[in-house]
Amino acid sequence: MSKLHHVKSYLEANKMDLAIFSDPVSIYYLTGYHSDPHERHMMLFVMPDHDSLLFLPALDVERAVATVDFPVAGYMDSENPWQIIKSKLPQKSFSAICAEFDNLNLTRYHGLQSIFSQPFSDITPLINTMKLIKSRDEIEKMLVAGEFADKAMQVGFNNISLDVTETDIIAQIEFEMKKQGISKMSFETMVLTGDNAANPHGIPSTNKIENNALLLFDLGVEALGYTSDMTRTVAVGKPDQFKKDIYNLTLEAHMAAVNMIKPGVTAGEIDYAARSVIEKAGYGEYFNHRLGHGLGMSVHEFPSIMEGNDLVIEEGMCFSVEPGIYIPGKVGVRIEDCGYVTKNGFEVFTKTPKELLYFEG
Amino acid sequence: MSKLHHVKSYLEANKMDLAIFSDPVSIYYLTGYHSDPHERHMMLFVMPDHDSLLFLPALDVERAVATVDFPVAGYMDSENPWQIIKSKLPQKSFSAICAEFDNLNLTRYHGLQSIFSQPFSDITPLINTMKLIKSRDEIEKMLVAGEFADKAMQVGFNNISLDVTETDIIAQIEFEMKKQGISKMSFETMVLTGDNAANPHGIPSTNKIENNALLLFDLGVEALGYTSDMTRTVAVGKPDQFKKDIYNLTLEAHMAAVNMIKPGVTAGEIDYAARSVIEKAGYGEYFNHRLGHGLGMSVHEFPSIMEGNDLVIEEGMCFSVEPGIYIPGKVGVRIEDCGYVTKNGFEVFTKTPKELLYFEG
Repeated sequence: MSKLHHVKSYLEANKMDLAIFSDPVSIYYLTGYHSDPHERHMMLFVMPDHDSLLFLPALDVERAVATVDFPVAGYMDSENPWQIIKSKLPQKSFSAICAEFDNLNLTRYHGLQSIFSQPFSDITPLINTMKLIKSRDEIEKMLVAGEFADKAMQVGFNNISLDVTETDIIAQIEFEMKKQGISKMSFETMVLTGDNAANPHGIPSTNKIENNALLLFDLGVEALGYTSDMTRTVAVGKPDQFKKDIYNLTLEAHMAAVNMIKPGVTAGEIDYAARSVIEKAGYGEYFNHRLGHGLGMSVHEFPSIMEGNDLVIEEGMCFSVEPGIYIPGKVGVRIEDCGYVTKNGFEVFTKTPKELLYFEG
Repeated sequence: MSKLHHVKSYLEANKMDLAIFSDPVSIYYLTGYHSDPHERHMMLFVMPDHDSLLFLPALDVERAVATVDFPVAGYMDSENPWQIIKSKLPQKSFSAICAEFDNLNLTRYHGLQSIFSQPFSDITPLINTMKLIKSRDEIEKMLVAGEFADKAMQVGFNNISLDVTETDIIAQIEFEMKKQGISKMSFETMVLTGDNAANPHGIPSTNKIENNALLLFDLGVEALGYTSDMTRTVAVGKPDQFKKDIYNLTLEAHMAAVNMIKPGVTAGEIDYAARSVIEKAGYGEYFNHRLGHGLGMSVHEFPSIMEGNDLVIEEGMCFSVEPGIYIPGKVGVRIEDCGYVTKNGFEVFTKTPKELLYFEG
């Protein structure tokens, strides 16, 4: 069953006659049509008993028509988009309408309310649930995105030198990826040296790579519409024993989580598997974020791998495992792989080794 | 008066006691604190008679505290953000609340409604109006962003060759910009050759640069928190006379608009100045977008320079002038500069020449 048909069946089963999607990622997921309309409007209208309608800026009509096999309507900046939507939808009164509450802003909501006066219900949970379990085809694409992340990480490793800065290495990584046909990184690439890595949201700058310190890389690429995300922390020169101990503790936590993932465990239990290793060693306060996040077409989606989340893990879910220990002024380590849940375990998308790698300063 | 004080005065004058900002760009604009919280929540609460409150993920608290001089509160992923907000705000009942309708999604709206039950009014118009007129300090930053756009364009020109692809040139431009300390382009850089440029929303690919054709560059960088945006179309080899005529017609339209901009004219009149040149020559149908858009911290903001917009132009407004003619299968041209309105005219941020430049194929 196609994804759009899945939505239609859901609407029918729930006696709803219109679903309105406004998140460009949801529209891409459901239709294969990808565009960022910026401040302009793009919405997908799905009905159980009529053709869907893709509504977007006039500029994008040509490309949309070439992509989807149902009606497309455009509007010019000087036109009233809501009246055009009304005129293009079936001329009937809709009784039960749902929309994406996680995306629809109040301006668009009020615009839609000028043509539909009843309250909306939320379709976000359906789309999140659909995205939660990846098909084999989606996993194949994520493996490709992971392979490119490994290549990007290798470019990073190849450019380690005490003569260059964090941003020099980032420039080199992104350049090589663009040359290989990657149009977009999943997020802003992070290369953080020494103290800067000890800040969990450190920002890369023109810091020269430090010697006898750890160096953190957090990066991902978009490929075939899917994202990747990985973090490695490596040694430059000869870091002291404390730094190596913190690295190995993080790795132990990482592996404790990876090794226990399988259908049936909960997200909270996975977080705890890693967190308890770090807490027992006395560094719990320095691991101040959740263990992981889902990813797919977006680099952050469900499931959230965190304390208190009782979500039961199922085959086909994809998420990150990324414990980190950040001791301000001393050391920062994070080790992250993303993977997919199999019948009995967890396979990662990225293959770069996880033991501490050493590079000459 | 600081920007936050401006908001407080507005609230006082309008008998409102709380404004809620949720757009990261608005928060950056008002406070100087910049972060993208992704799917997590970040909100700024401004009250006329109390300290403001910046609410954000726990991870970001340290950096925020170092940036702003009013209270900051964080939340962990496992906590209920709305209850924390309630506990950190003054324990009084608010009577009139406004929020950013162009940004606030229904999920956050409903979360806020769990602690404030009255309807909200829209603060978007105030923030848009504030952003509309740039201070001298903002214009200085935009001049720097413009200077980097000129440099980026020059890198593009230096890399024109029949042996490379659109994405090769993009990789080179972005690499050189990163090396110069630019962490982000304003949007995905576009390099479009020949037929691909004839599509107003063409997507760069591995097309080799065509000879005896036009080549379009659309790019911008972020610098000092502000964006730039420019488009140049150049000749590779010896394009035929028709292509050159379309170029010169676009340039004539561009200059007709630039030369008439000054305080007192309307946005619609500026659009018409360019559009009428192209319409009179019989190509009106191939100029299928508005003439321009405002820019500042975002690459698309107000004013919208389009047909039917009666907004009166004032000193300090910043926007693009970007007429284009796209004749599918034949030729595509766009010439874009952004600039700021002075007492008597319009000064552009980018200085790359506008006459048709020729490069060897």
